Amino acid sequence: MTDRSHLIDALRALLGERLSTGQSVREAHGRDEAYSAHALPDAVAFPETTEEVSRIVTLCAGADCPVTAFGVGTSLEGHVIPVRGGISLDLSRMNRVLAVNAADLDAVVEPGVTRKALNEHLRASGLMFTVDPGADASLGGMAATRASGTNAVRYGTMRENVLALEVVLADGTVIETGTRARKSSTGYDLTHLFVGSEGTLGIITKLTVKLHGVPERVSAATAAFPDVASAVDTVILAIQSGLPMARIELLDEVQMGGMNLYNPDLKLPEKPHLFLEFHGTEAGVAEQVETFRAIAEEHGAAGFACATRTEERTRLWEARHNAYYAGKALRPGCDGVVTDVCVPISALAESIARTKEEIAAAGLIAPLVGHVGDGNFHLLILVEPGNAEELARAQDLAHRVCKLALNLGGTVSGEHGVGTGKLKYMAEEHGAAVGVMATLKRAMDPRNILNPGKLVALN
Amino acid sequence: MTDRSHLIDALRALLGERLSTGQSVREAHGRDEAYSAHALPDAVAFPETTEEVSRIVTLCAGADCPVTAFGVGTSLEGHVIPVRGGISLDLSRMNRVLAVNAADLDAVVEPGVTRKALNEHLRASGLMFTVDPGADASLGGMAATRASGTNAVRYGTMRENVLALEVVLADGTVIETGTRARKSSTGYDLTHLFVGSEGTLGIITKLTVKLHGVPERVSAATAAFPDVASAVDTVILAIQSGLPMARIELLDEVQMGGMNLYNPDLKLPEKPHLFLEFHGTEAGVAEQVETFRAIAEEHGAAGFACATRTEERTRLWEARHNAYYAGKALRPGCDGVVTDVCVPISALAESIARTKEEIAAAGLIAPLVGHVGDGNFHLLILVEPGNAEELARAQDLAHRVCKLALNLGGTVSGEHGVGTGKLKYMAEEHGAAVGVMATLKRAMDPRNILNPGKLVALN
Repeated sequence: MTDRSHLIDALRALLGERLSTGQSVREAHGRDEAYSAHALPDAVAFPETTEEVSRIVTLCAGADCPVTAFGVGTSLEGHVIPVRGGISLDLSRMNRVLAVNAADLDAVVEPGVTRKALNEHLRASGLMFTVDPGADASLGGMAATRASGTNAVRYGTMRENVLALEVVLADGTVIETGTRARKSSTGYDLTHLFVGSEGTLGIITKLTVKLHGVPERVSAATAAFPDVASAVDTVILAIQSGLPMARIELLDEVQMGGMNLYNPDLKLPEKPHLFLEFHGTEAGVAEQVETFRAIAEEHGAAGFACATRTEERTRLWEARHNAYYAGKALRPGCDGVVTDVCVPISALAESIARTKEEIAAAGLIAPLVGHVGDGNFHLLILVEPGNAEELARAQDLAHRVCKLALNLGGTVSGEHGVGTGKLKYMAEEHGAAVGVMATLKRAMDPRNILNPGKLVALN
Repeated sequence: MTDRSHLIDALRALLGERLSTGQSVREAHGRDEAYSAHALPDAVAFPETTEEVSRIVTLCAGADCPVTAFGVGTSLEGHVIPVRGGISLDLSRMNRVLAVNAADLDAVVEPGVTRKALNEHLRASGLMFTVDPGADASLGGMAATRASGTNAVRYGTMRENVLALEVVLADGTVIETGTRARKSSTGYDLTHLFVGSEGTLGIITKLTVKLHGVPERVSAATAAFPDVASAVDTVILAIQSGLPMARIELLDEVQMGGMNLYNPDLKLPEKPHLFLEFHGTEAGVAEQVETFRAIAEEHGAAGFACATRTEERTRLWEARHNAYYAGKALRPGCDGVVTDVCVPISALAESIARTKEEIAAAGLIAPLVGHVGDGNFHLLILVEPGNAEELARAQDLAHRVCKLALNLGGTVSGEHGVGTGKLKYMAEEHGAAVGVMATLKRAMDPRNILNPGKLVALN
């Protein structure tokens, strides 16, 4: 094992008590929410400024020591696990909102600000930050994993909502990747290169993100469908019609069973459902709801219910946000193996139908929820803790779902990312382009110190 | 001078008559619409397939010969000019629409398809491709320069409208940068790395682009304002209110003078104007128009006029599209020096006001038009052909406008790109990030054969 005591001493001299080698702190930084092997960092650093991040990375570079950025630990493919040890760089103390520019509809934040903290900060401004992956993740982590969520169909993912970044490179250099101007055509798009790079090309120390005006009117709705295909066809037609739905979520009949168990007041039929949200003016939302209802009913929807009162909407979307726990309620005490894939929307109904055949063949319980406007769905495969045979069956099922998505022209992750969990699919999904990714990684991080072992396999 | 006769022979063996060394063909590929020095390629190649592009690039790599991609030649900063000779790669014969996927709202096209050709192809489908830079540019060229235009405020620029690319790399390798899935979080965002890379990292041979449904209703409107600041404040408030304007264009009083000269039927007051377009349902558009009118009139707008009939709208937007010629009508027989900058919208009014002071100080005529929803504006500086002193004054004015944009937190090009024309500002705009751009260029094109001398200055 490498002796990193000199490095640890130098980091302690820089950070004092903000450098921890305590067992419990290291353990808290040795895992995420993925069902994957844990690994401990040698130490955890808690920087408070960009300059400190730069000095930490410079020291680590000098010692050939891995640096793995850590936000709040809600990643789902092992991204924050320091698989080769080294320093876990916990950015939670860099949590200031530096500026809110109302006229420009943007905000400048440090990477440890969470999405809920930003929206709380914005409460009196009439503005909102829209990317909502469910977890109260940090914005740095959301940018690094190209996070997305329920309202990406209207407002976009982190790909569309990050305007510019400040990044510390592998040699400690600090760069800015853009300005607050809404667009630019000067030079390579470094912002998008770092968004989704999972901490392997640089450490994000500042973000400029887009904001949106809070709509005058918000309505929520639910509709039950005879089958998944009818629900998907409804979504396709609604999008083609230009209906600007803010959220459109699919929950299959298995998931709905869990929802009813977990939320006793919900009492919705155990059929595939769409949960929707409409944003706009009062008249605009009313028109959207009626247009959607007509399309849905043409496709056999029943029990279309619309909620405009805040409490009703909140109850409905809280239920959707708790889908993970509702799914687990189907098998109390179980663990969950999670996967997410995304296909062209025209292939979504087939993708889901064949996924459900695979679930049946595997003899497992696996509720399905989908950001169906994007062609993206998640599977939560329930397994008995400690049952190795069942875990292997669940992992095989997740593997089959990924292969299906690839065969249908899709991707093995719509929003969770690669980490270590999806690394084995990169060559099949990207072909010769993985060579370009390796070239970029080698050029920008020649010592391979930034989150090594993630996203891109180096020879 | 390098002897490239062996290479030319090899290319002729591959392409036959589709390799031209004729003077007039070379001259047609030695210029764009920029006011910059021309330079001739040694030969012009007209490939018809990706495989041919790959073989051409491989042959050029073996001979250390530059390859400069050419679409239709409407770039504005010298992008397509082969400043170091070599091969001009004319992609106009790769002009097939390969697929239109209506359910997925996307199309797959070859790079030589122009935006008008694609929209003509889509005519019966109820779908449209929205990026409209004015010129009937090729989609490959538009992706390579991250083009934008009048309706980017609602539908986005090429940055938002390219889903995936096929690219030939500097060693002839062919890669795909994504799938037709709407989103993915697997790996580095190579699509965005190539969008805006101006042919310096690879040759785009296929594009998957987003389509949008043709709206049920389209209305156009014009409004005259007492000054530019009132017009800009109107735009800011309209955007904050969530008004989904499809186009919102500013034309200053000088430009309006040209418009009236060039379009005798127009007869609009010579005051700053906004030209607008609203897309939506019939009721939705009516509501947008009324909301906008109220905001505009609060800011002193007069003569608000709305056109819903197709002929009226077409007349108005044809006039806007011909703004370049209308501007030139202010000084018949003149040449034009064009520049474009983009700033945070909160800085737009100041940026324009100070630009107009610079125009006055320079003693030149320079009409101004702006994609004001994005904070982007263009200046057309009119100069007497052959008058070197006036040309120098015009170039100095353009330089001052760029410096002003940088000082106000903006970029020296919102949509025209770098080419050779804006190369000198890259270090000031991007700081240490230009080092990353050079690293990427060297890693991906170690022989510097792809459009050398553009976008990034190598040591």
